[in-house]
Amino acid sequence: MHAMTIPQPGDPDILTWAEVPDPVPAEGEVLVDVVASAVNRADIAQRQGNYPPPPGAPPYPGLEASGRVAALGPGVAGWAVGDEVCALLSGGGYATKVAVPAGQLLPVPQGVDLVAAAALPEVASTVWSNVFMVAHLRPGETLLVHGGASGIGTMAIQLAKAVGARVAVTAGSAEKLERCRALGADILINYREQDFASELKKATDGGGADVILDIVGADYLKQNVKALAVNGRITIIGMQGGRRGELDIGALMMKRGAVVGTTLRSRPLGEKASIVAAVREHVWPLIESGRVKPVIDRAVAMQDAADAHRYVEESGHVGKVLLTV
Amino acid sequence: MHAMTIPQPGDPDILTWAEVPDPVPAEGEVLVDVVASAVNRADIAQRQGNYPPPPGAPPYPGLEASGRVAALGPGVAGWAVGDEVCALLSGGGYATKVAVPAGQLLPVPQGVDLVAAAALPEVASTVWSNVFMVAHLRPGETLLVHGGASGIGTMAIQLAKAVGARVAVTAGSAEKLERCRALGADILINYREQDFASELKKATDGGGADVILDIVGADYLKQNVKALAVNGRITIIGMQGGRRGELDIGALMMKRGAVVGTTLRSRPLGEKASIVAAVREHVWPLIESGRVKPVIDRAVAMQDAADAHRYVEESGHVGKVLLTV
Repeated sequence: MHAMTIPQPGDPDILTWAEVPDPVPAEGEVLVDVVASAVNRADIAQRQGNYPPPPGAPPYPGLEASGRVAALGPGVAGWAVGDEVCALLSGGGYATKVAVPAGQLLPVPQGVDLVAAAALPEVASTVWSNVFMVAHLRPGETLLVHGGASGIGTMAIQLAKAVGARVAVTAGSAEKLERCRALGADILINYREQDFASELKKATDGGGADVILDIVGADYLKQNVKALAVNGRITIIGMQGGRRGELDIGALMMKRGAVVGTTLRSRPLGEKASIVAAVREHVWPLIESGRVKPVIDRAVAMQDAADAHRYVEESGHVGKVLLTV
Repeated sequence: MHAMTIPQPGDPDILTWAEVPDPVPAEGEVLVDVVASAVNRADIAQRQGNYPPPPGAPPYPGLEASGRVAALGPGVAGWAVGDEVCALLSGGGYATKVAVPAGQLLPVPQGVDLVAAAALPEVASTVWSNVFMVAHLRPGETLLVHGGASGIGTMAIQLAKAVGARVAVTAGSAEKLERCRALGADILINYREQDFASELKKATDGGGADVILDIVGADYLKQNVKALAVNGRITIIGMQGGRRGELDIGALMMKRGAVVGTTLRSRPLGEKASIVAAVREHVWPLIESGRVKPVIDRAVAMQDAADAHRYVEESGHVGKVLLTV
């Protein structure tokens, strides 16, 4: 098969579409002919040499894909060759074939085309696991999403609104904020022009955010604690703003708040399968009813993955950037 | 009545036993004739001017007491004048009388005398709410308790062992560690001589602590994250080692760990009542069966509270220091 290889860490142009050995589905795995994958920040970090694939994962980037089942490994039930699917991957989506543990496979939701389905597994799993399974966002609570116009952000807005929460977002331009508003966001904060903690406090009569979904890390830690409501939960899933930050323990104690750091990729198979099952149960019906939609900025040919990486690194996109085989 | 007043923040000798107005039990409150109270670190912080009582709380120190019901406020059911009780207080235990919301009252457990019962409400509520209700310690998991010989530590060891967890403790002397061992602690770490994170990793085959109950705060934050197991939870309930610490978000994410800061005193009445009800349901039977015992270092006359404060500030004690009226 072909896959996007990373001969050594470097700039986007290092990405090299090359002939590589076909993956063989192991016990409990399904082989998928890939139709589309999508760019995630983790792919960029991996390309830069900052985020090595976990043990056992394919060496190629790509944390999600859509396609058709090509073969079943031993012991797999519930799927058939030819099924249209999408999947949460621990890597290897930038390829013509990928082997996936069956528990990470999802059917393509009704009403979503096969290419667009590649936009869903990573954001749906990330948002559902963190905002709902870890932070337990409840109806009537306020969710603050940093990077509201990102793939994760656009899914978080829609899912939180669907369960009856209030949503605040930060983004870096009026255009992005307008897109967030159109998806249902209630409180719009331009982080380039406004102090998000103060703005959020103002907009919530001093209450703050019950849940914060954060991709920034260190640079936002202090302000996230400030923006937090009593009994609030901060879930950090990215470190775009650095790894080590000062935690004001006194402020956290006064709020009886929690700071959780988590990743999806490194979780054991059983946990990923639980998350994917929860996504299928809770998120898929919302997509099939049209209440929640994949938000896709553009689809780029897989061979142009370098351009797609540059585009995402410049943060010009809203929603997902897909890569089509 | 008489109460221990704090004319201005200062050293232990500032504490002044003085005639003050009697408290009047409000709607839903019970008036208790105090027989004993106990010294908590929060009392010392309050005396030093660093921990003002929350709005509505009595101005006198004392977060727990035992005694006899003297009168019922309007709307109180389930208690009668003369009942022997102990209570979780938001302050005011260093006095001859205190008015308590009925939801914070507990019967004196069978087999515990009325003075000794003053050792129980704060530690039982703190440990149960944090280790079990917040951090969800489960059978087979490992709990790390800092200050294992403190009032909170001695209760945490016993409760965690009673539910089938493994317990690691830190303390500052071999004598204190031996007391912890006698209470059931499995892993003993002298924090003056050993690096607790390395020792804990060694003792758990690299696994680390599933739950850490921490009273130190900033100075231990880095090492607590290091000592944490995958999916572990750090619950910070004190800041004896400072308020602002560096959080390694990357390490926390790799472990999918949580840092929770919390206090008991500032919680709203409804939450305190839930905690006290859970203590009565889960902890009281363990005490009545003899499985868990109050650990009392000494009882001092209330008028000698200054000596008791000095003693606790020097950390010479194991378990609780009581104050008797």
